[in-house]
Amino acid sequence: MKFKTEYLTLNVPARRAFVNLTREVDRVVRESGVREGMVLVNAMHISASVFINDDEKGLHHDFEVFLERLAPHQPIGQYRHNDTGEDNADAHIKRQIMGREVVVAITEGKLDFGPWEQIFYGEFDGLRPKRVLVKVMGE
Amino acid sequence: MKFKTEYLTLNVPARRAFVNLTREVDRVVRESGVREGMVLVNAMHISASVFINDDEKGLHHDFEVFLERLAPHQPIGQYRHNDTGEDNADAHIKRQIMGREVVVAITEGKLDFGPWEQIFYGEFDGLRPKRVLVKVMGE
Amino acid sequence: MKFKTEYLTLNVPARRAFVNLTREVDRVVRESGVREGMVLVNAMHISASVFINDDEKGLHHDFEVFLERLAPHQPIGQYRHNDTGEDNADAHIKRQIMGREVVVAITEGKLDFGPWEQIFYGEFDGLRPKRVLVKVMGE
Repeated sequence: MKFKTEYLTLNVPARRAFVNLTREVDRVVRESGVREGMVLVNAMHISASVFINDDEKGLHHDFEVFLERLAPHQPIGQYRHNDTGEDNADAHIKRQIMGREVVVAITEGKLDFGPWEQIFYGEFDGLRPKRVLVKVMGE
Repeated sequence: MKFKTEYLTLNVPARRAFVNLTREVDRVVRESGVREGMVLVNAMHISASVFINDDEKGLHHDFEVFLERLAPHQPIGQYRHNDTGEDNADAHIKRQIMGREVVVAITEGKLDFGPWEQIFYGEFDGLRPKRVLVKVMGE
Repeated sequence: MKFKTEYLTLNVPARRAFVNLTREVDRVVRESGVREGMVLVNAMHISASVFINDDEKGLHHDFEVFLERLAPHQPIGQYRHNDTGEDNADAHIKRQIMGREVVVAITEGKLDFGPWEQIFYGEFDGLRPKRVLVKVMGE
């Protein structure tokens, strides 16, 4: 069995944004030498997501509007979590909706993807460095 | 280590529907010869889901009502993604809520399921062929 | 390859609650002897979740308020699933929002976690025993 573990650091210069990680994950898979297996990609922070969807700016705008409608950032005081001095309760909720992780099949040495699948990091409480774990497992 | 990869093609004759995949996934697991391991089942399209829940028509109706309330298909023009000529922005959002994939344990050669667990394909933009990946990994 | 499968039984004395499973999962990983691999943790019941987020009481209150707003338990009769004699349609929906499972990387014999990651069981239809599967796979 082969394993490869890598930690990507994201430093998003905004409170919320979506960042395409596909190229980086693809690189880790190629460097692992794994021909058959799986790769786990997960946010290591609990106010961020990793998910798979379309690389299309309009859709990312729609996700942002949808998430702000379900769990608005303001007013801060609507969330009990923010009584602790935090202001990011909405980010913890948004992350639950979008998900923490993806597991992607590796077949013949490549990410076994459909035509439009792209891996995204969803930042909901940015302006500071955060990590994403990429773990390849197979042979 | 053993691996088995199979692609199921779904051609749902409606915009939205839920299709039970359990029997097919069970067959792939049995054919793989894997006794201990995991199986990944994921939609390869970004306007569809794979998830585990109950095989009960009333509940599927409730899911449909819930998803249409959160991210209605109409009016098309409420989504910026649809400015590209698409009309399926709602399907991309519904897929995020219901999820892309499941990972199921294989124990003693079988899907290690609780009493009511069933694997479903959730189609949110159908009327065309789409694929689901099933990847078994173990020994 | 090494595998270890364990079933945790949860008996939550309330309809809804969040229970921290991290210590139990950590124990299973240590007992497995796996140094590199992955652990799958999933609810075996379809009205419960396993997810990763913060161990903070205020946030759990915010999750509860958020989920009850999206899919309220009452009135029972708003859901077709409840026509079958059940009263837990809302629990099936809440479980979809929060997720069925997590997959966590194991690196150097430990859960490869960010600073705040904790694994929770989310019960949405309690007052009876239910099971969580923990499956370790690696070497």
